[in-house]
Amino acid sequence: MSEKIYVGADIGGTAIKVGICNENGDLLHTFEGPTETEQGTDRILSNIAGYARHIVSESPYSWEQVAGLGVGIAGFIDIPKGFMKFSPNLPLTNVPLKDYLEAALNKKVRINNDANVAALGEAWGGAGRGVGSCVVYTLGTGVGGGIVVDGRLIEGFTGMGGELGHISIVPDLEAIQCGCGKMGCLETVSSATGIIRMAKDAVERGDRTSLTAIEKLTAKDVFDAAKSGDEAAQRIVSRAAFYLGKSLAAVSVIINPQRFILGGGVSAAGEFLFAQVREVFRKYAQDRAQEGVDIVAAELGNNAGVVGAAGLLLHA
Amino acid sequence: MSEKIYVGADIGGTAIKVGICNENGDLLHTFEGPTETEQGTDRILSNIAGYARHIVSESPYSWEQVAGLGVGIAGFIDIPKGFMKFSPNLPLTNVPLKDYLEAALNKKVRINNDANVAALGEAWGGAGRGVGSCVVYTLGTGVGGGIVVDGRLIEGFTGMGGELGHISIVPDLEAIQCGCGKMGCLETVSSATGIIRMAKDAVERGDRTSLTAIEKLTAKDVFDAAKSGDEAAQRIVSRAAFYLGKSLAAVSVIINPQRFILGGGVSAAGEFLFAQVREVFRKYAQDRAQEGVDIVAAELGNNAGVVGAAGLLLHA
Repeated sequence: MSEKIYVGADIGGTAIKVGICNENGDLLHTFEGPTETEQGTDRILSNIAGYARHIVSESPYSWEQVAGLGVGIAGFIDIPKGFMKFSPNLPLTNVPLKDYLEAALNKKVRINNDANVAALGEAWGGAGRGVGSCVVYTLGTGVGGGIVVDGRLIEGFTGMGGELGHISIVPDLEAIQCGCGKMGCLETVSSATGIIRMAKDAVERGDRTSLTAIEKLTAKDVFDAAKSGDEAAQRIVSRAAFYLGKSLAAVSVIINPQRFILGGGVSAAGEFLFAQVREVFRKYAQDRAQEGVDIVAAELGNNAGVVGAAGLLLHA
Repeated sequence: MSEKIYVGADIGGTAIKVGICNENGDLLHTFEGPTETEQGTDRILSNIAGYARHIVSESPYSWEQVAGLGVGIAGFIDIPKGFMKFSPNLPLTNVPLKDYLEAALNKKVRINNDANVAALGEAWGGAGRGVGSCVVYTLGTGVGGGIVVDGRLIEGFTGMGGELGHISIVPDLEAIQCGCGKMGCLETVSSATGIIRMAKDAVERGDRTSLTAIEKLTAKDVFDAAKSGDEAAQRIVSRAAFYLGKSLAAVSVIINPQRFILGGGVSAAGEFLFAQVREVFRKYAQDRAQEGVDIVAAELGNNAGVVGAAGLLLHA
C-alpha cells in the first residue's frame, strides 16, 4: 500500500466535492460537504482542508500516501502562486489559498481555474485518456474550455488560454455582443444561452415552429424540436454546430490536437449535434490537421472537476 | 572557453546557411554554402555535415564545445525521429536525416520544419527574447507561423501546430479557395499573394485606383498606393489587416501568448499595417486576453532560420 494517491477538490458556491485518484486518473473515492459560504473565508478554507483529510481517513489509504491536493475553483487566480485574487461566488478576495492549504495539510497544493481543471480531468482520466493533446469544450450556460498539450495545461499569459467561448467567430453582419463585451463570440451562438436566444428570436419573428408553444424554453427543447423535424429549430442547431465546428477547424491549425472533447449540457444532444459539428470541421479544417483527429463526447460529467484537480499534481 | 555553442542549419533549395549561437540565442557566426541539390541526396547530406564542421573550424570555438546541430527544413518530417518523409524542393524522400547527421558528426541532432524553426528563432533570439510565450506570423508568399509556449514549440499531433495561414477566417459569402483546398483561409487575404490578388480584382473590376497603371503588381505597390491615399488600395490593406487582426484575437483566447511577432515581406509595410492590425485585435480580443500583450515586428529577418535551428537543441 505504498502507491501514491492524488486528492482533488472542486470548490463550488454550495458544495465542495473532494476525490481520490490513483496515478492513472481513476477516481477511487468521492465525498461532498457543504461549502458554508455564509460562514465566511476562514470556514471555507478549513472546510477544504477538513474534507481532504476526511476523505483520506475514511479510505483504505494512509495520509502518507497522499502526493498532494489539487484545487479547481472559479475566479481570477495567480496560478503559480495559488493566490485567489477574486472569486465570483465566494468570499475569497486576495486569499493565499495555496499557502494556507499547504500549511494546513503539510502537502503539496496546486490551484487552477475550474474550466481548465475540468478539461484536464477529461484529458487525463476521461475521454482523453492515453491521448497526449486534447482540446475540451464545455457547452453549458456559457462555452468554457481547456487545452492540454503533451499532458500540460495551456494556461496563457494572463490565464486566458483555452477560453474557447470567446473566439470571435460570428461575422459582424450577424454578430451580437457577448457578455464579455466583444462582438461575435462563439458563446453567443453555441452555448445553451445562445441557443435559447436564437429560439426566442425565431418565435418573436413569427417563424412557424413548435417552439412557440413552449413557455420556458430550454436548449433541450430546441434540440428535441429539431430532431422531430421542426425546421426553425433545425436552423438554430445548424448555426450552433456551424460556428462550433468552424472554431474546431481554427483550433486544429493552431494547436493541432489529437482529440476534441465536447461536454456540458448542450453536448447531451448527442450524435444529432456531433454529426453536424464533424461535417463542418471536415469542411474547414486543413486535411492534414484532421488526419487521425476525432471529436468525442466527454465522459466524466460532474466528476471532471475533482479528477482534473487531482491531476494538477501530475500535470501542472 | 568551455561554454557550449549551438549550431543551426537552414536548408534551402539553393543554399545551406549555418550559424553558431551561444546559449542566449546570440548569433555569433554564419556561413553559407551551396546545397548542390542537383548532385543528389548524398551530396546534400554531406554538405550539411561539412558546413557544420567548417563553421566551427573557422570560429574561435572547439568542436568539443558544440552541444549539437539543429536543422530547419521545408517538408513533411517525423519530428521525434528526425525522419524526412518528403521535401517539396530537395531529393530527400524517406531519408533518416537525424540518424545520418548524428553518425556523421557524433553530436545530438534535432530536425524541425522551417516555419516552426523560424518562429523559434524569433522567440528565442529575436523579437521574443525574454518572453515565455510568443506567436509568430510570417507574412510572405503564404502565411506561415509558429507557436512557442514556455519556450517550447507547439508541434501538433500531425505537425500542423502553428499553421496560422490556414485558419478559415473569411466568411463563406466572400471567401475564395486556398491553395490547401479549403475555403477562406487567412492566407487568401493576408499574404502577399492574397493582397496582389485583391489588387488585380480591383483593377479588373474597374475601381478607380493608381494600381491600374502598374504592370507587375507587388504587395509593396499596394501598400505604397494605400499610404499615398489611394482608396481602393486602402480597402485592400484594411481587409488584409482585418482578418489578420481577427486571427490574432482568436489565438489570444486559445493560447493567450504574451507577444505576437509579425515577420515576412508583408510586415515590411511597417507601422501603417501594424496600427490597423492592433486596432482590430483590440476590438475583437477579450480584454483580459490583451492585457500586457503586444504586437511587434520580427527582428532577425533571414537569420531567424539558423537561430531557431540552433535553438532546437535547447527548446525541443
